[in-house]
Amino acid sequence: MQNNRLIITLFGASGDLAQRKLYPALYQLYRKKIISNHFAVIGTARREWTNDHYRQIVIANIINHCKDKKEAMMFASHFYYQPHDVHDTDQYKNLQQLAEQLDQTYQTEGNRIFYISLSPQLFPIITKHLKTQGLITNTGYNRLIIEKPFGYSEESADLLQKQLEESFEENQIYRIDHYLGKSLVNQILPIRFNNHIMKSIWTGETIDHIQITLNESIGVEDRGSYYETSGVSRDMIQNHALQLLALVTMLEPTAFNASEIRDEKIKILKNLTLFDGWDQAELNIVRGQYGPSLDGQHPGYREEKNINEQSLVETFIALKLKIDYGGWQHTPIYIRSGKHMSTKQTDIKIVFKQIKKDIPANYLQFELAPNPGIRLYLSQSDSTHQEEIMPLNLFYTVPPEICSELPKDYEKLILDCIEGNLNNFTHYLEAKYAWRLIDRIQHYWAQEDTVCFPNYPAQSDGPKAGQEIILRDQKNWINK
Amino acid sequence: MQNNRLIITLFGASGDLAQRKLYPALYQLYRKKIISNHFAVIGTARREWTNDHYRQIVIANIINHCKDKKEAMMFASHFYYQPHDVHDTDQYKNLQQLAEQLDQTYQTEGNRIFYISLSPQLFPIITKHLKTQGLITNTGYNRLIIEKPFGYSEESADLLQKQLEESFEENQIYRIDHYLGKSLVNQILPIRFNNHIMKSIWTGETIDHIQITLNESIGVEDRGSYYETSGVSRDMIQNHALQLLALVTMLEPTAFNASEIRDEKIKILKNLTLFDGWDQAELNIVRGQYGPSLDGQHPGYREEKNINEQSLVETFIALKLKIDYGGWQHTPIYIRSGKHMSTKQTDIKIVFKQIKKDIPANYLQFELAPNPGIRLYLSQSDSTHQEEIMPLNLFYTVPPEICSELPKDYEKLILDCIEGNLNNFTHYLEAKYAWRLIDRIQHYWAQEDTVCFPNYPAQSDGPKAGQEIILRDQKNWINK
Repeated sequence: MQNNRLIITLFGASGDLAQRKLYPALYQLYRKKIISNHFAVIGTARREWTNDHYRQIVIANIINHCKDKKEAMMFASHFYYQPHDVHDTDQYKNLQQLAEQLDQTYQTEGNRIFYISLSPQLFPIITKHLKTQGLITNTGYNRLIIEKPFGYSEESADLLQKQLEESFEENQIYRIDHYLGKSLVNQILPIRFNNHIMKSIWTGETIDHIQITLNESIGVEDRGSYYETSGVSRDMIQNHALQLLALVTMLEPTAFNASEIRDEKIKILKNLTLFDGWDQAELNIVRGQYGPSLDGQHPGYREEKNINEQSLVETFIALKLKIDYGGWQHTPIYIRSGKHMSTKQTDIKIVFKQIKKDIPANYLQFELAPNPGIRLYLSQSDSTHQEEIMPLNLFYTVPPEICSELPKDYEKLILDCIEGNLNNFTHYLEAKYAWRLIDRIQHYWAQEDTVCFPNYPAQSDGPKAGQEIILRDQKNWINK
Repeated sequence: MQNNRLIITLFGASGDLAQRKLYPALYQLYRKKIISNHFAVIGTARREWTNDHYRQIVIANIINHCKDKKEAMMFASHFYYQPHDVHDTDQYKNLQQLAEQLDQTYQTEGNRIFYISLSPQLFPIITKHLKTQGLITNTGYNRLIIEKPFGYSEESADLLQKQLEESFEENQIYRIDHYLGKSLVNQILPIRFNNHIMKSIWTGETIDHIQITLNESIGVEDRGSYYETSGVSRDMIQNHALQLLALVTMLEPTAFNASEIRDEKIKILKNLTLFDGWDQAELNIVRGQYGPSLDGQHPGYREEKNINEQSLVETFIALKLKIDYGGWQHTPIYIRSGKHMSTKQTDIKIVFKQIKKDIPANYLQFELAPNPGIRLYLSQSDSTHQEEIMPLNLFYTVPPEICSELPKDYEKLILDCIEGNLNNFTHYLEAKYAWRLIDRIQHYWAQEDTVCFPNYPAQSDGPKAGQEIILRDQKNWINK
């Protein structure tokens, strides 16, 4: 394949994401010879670094994964640093010249990936210059990788898309949701559609409800300024939770390519609404904000660094959603996500209809964290009298070499981008319709008279209403 | 419960089965206090043993399971020996007197279990005397436990039943098939009918075919004389294999009691036939007999002890069956059982329809031996490119404390009998219809002109035709 001849131009080369995830991910691709002699990375940021200094930074971030220093240095020799102010048109000329020169040196055939790991408001400024200053080539491929968030609302996403499309077409834009790089998430569609058993049972007729839980045990930590503009609805729901939801509910695509897969996901997200309708929003939306932990060990959200003392930003959310499409109209989808919860838990549970009142419902769990695995929870009887119901749990544990977390998901997604595979990147319309739901939730909150925050202590199970949203339906959050 | 006040009269007290299985099983029930002060065992056999000698035998067979010798002696003190010739009417008087006396001593309230662990032709002789000589009480319950085989053909089973019914009613007769005492076999119905997922997928529409394998790695060993009258069709198929078949295909009973469960099993066995009909018997029935192993380490069947040098008895069988009932008309059921196979394997595989040509079919395995467990074999994709199909196997391993084999199954079945629970005992009509199938197979064999035995070497996978019976249908025996 010639796809792996390429120059990656990275905006935000000194940033945390680049150092913790991108350099290790690229190194893994290099170690596996997916990228080898014919690649170069141009790192850019405002600081005045030298190539040497930059390469030291790269080496420092990969050295733990290397078998020897020599290999690390070989790898780092592909990295070039260019100080860069994204607002300064002239400076793009330097980038353009460096890229052309490296294109010759490494024979990269004009293939370019532009990776923007900077604040989203800089996306259109950079892409405009890439186009006008001639960094986009005519010979090879040109692809844009951008990190979340894609906009801040449906309207801003529309505007952003319009701006990006002046330089890149939709199918050149790789919007990263790193959840879609996780191996277990990548398995959802193959498992659903390549197994007769799963296809048979995976319908609104058979499934009682779906639970998606993205609970973190940590608080906001040093991300206060960002979090104040985001809250859990934008930080976790608009992207990760709704992507998981789309994957477990989308209908079978006619072909397993990005176009068909994303079309089906779009249909789900477009038809997503509150289960009981917006006039019953108070029954379908719960928000919370953590206060100090009961043991006094952890401060409340409002006491954290860079947080407004009267902040109304939510650190917990629970939703009861409905999809008016695909036979899911009667299947509630419960989503919850919180910071500073008593335990970390990231999973999806497909809960099947109960067969008898005294027998627990069957469910299928995809657990992303803390113990990645796929588990089917069934019932058997006690072996002596066969009267008592006992669990029968069928387990698949993801092998440790696959489930090791970061930078594994970035490695997967960068590889996908190199191969031109958009399957695991969100389409603009996915982002747009996800924002539409979040916008309505925000709008509902904005109209509420009083907000009693904080309403749950750090290191707890969240506000009481977060339990009631599901208890009201005679169901429970399953906490294992 | 007063059910556990009882006298067990055992015919065949000096036999192998009694020593290896019944005494240890009874000891476990004693240790668990299911039987305690109010029970006695009258052991009978032809030999002139004393109570003391008998108790030493009992102790010797349980001592490995005991925590101390004192408890073993306490247990053995409930055992009484009575020399007995089953043909001698007068001797039943002694038994009757002893039973009455022990009834007083242990206050067993007239409850009696008669356990015949002797050759089947003695069953009616004994039961007739039990009735005429007054051993059957009027005050408590009277139950008869008999070991297989129940007859030798449909006709002989009918006759035997008629004879037994002169002394016992059908619902007093506990026909032991020790497979029905295995915990995993006991789980088949609860798992099928208490799980929404299992109910949804367990139909002739969804299931492609069923495989039942009862392969032994040992040869006929010292059971030659018996085996010459039996062969694998009578030794393994008529009882164990067809019982497993009935459990995995019976329709849901309207209630989980013996009457309803056995009614549904009877319907299956009554409607059992060759898949392609009797005029195509050669495609649906394969028999084999082992010759010497290729390495010369094991003799052929005809060279074993007490075997006719020109024996035509089969040590291997493969069948392709159909059930003309319950929606199973288009679902082949492949059964195979052999002695001296390359590996021991006892399992049931429910194989679901294939979804695409290049993706292996899903299947659910109940493995009784060698590694008891329930496993669901599905597919996922390789985590990088998602093009290659990889296995996704969900496992439940039976905990060792449950799966320990003998005397666990006897313990379970004797407990069931004490509790008057006939669920796990075969009804007369089950035996009758199972014999009907075996009779027709025997009849077909009797008409064959030539039999080329031996036709597989010991320690192999059986005769080639045993593979072809399933390969012909573009399917494979699954050997894991």
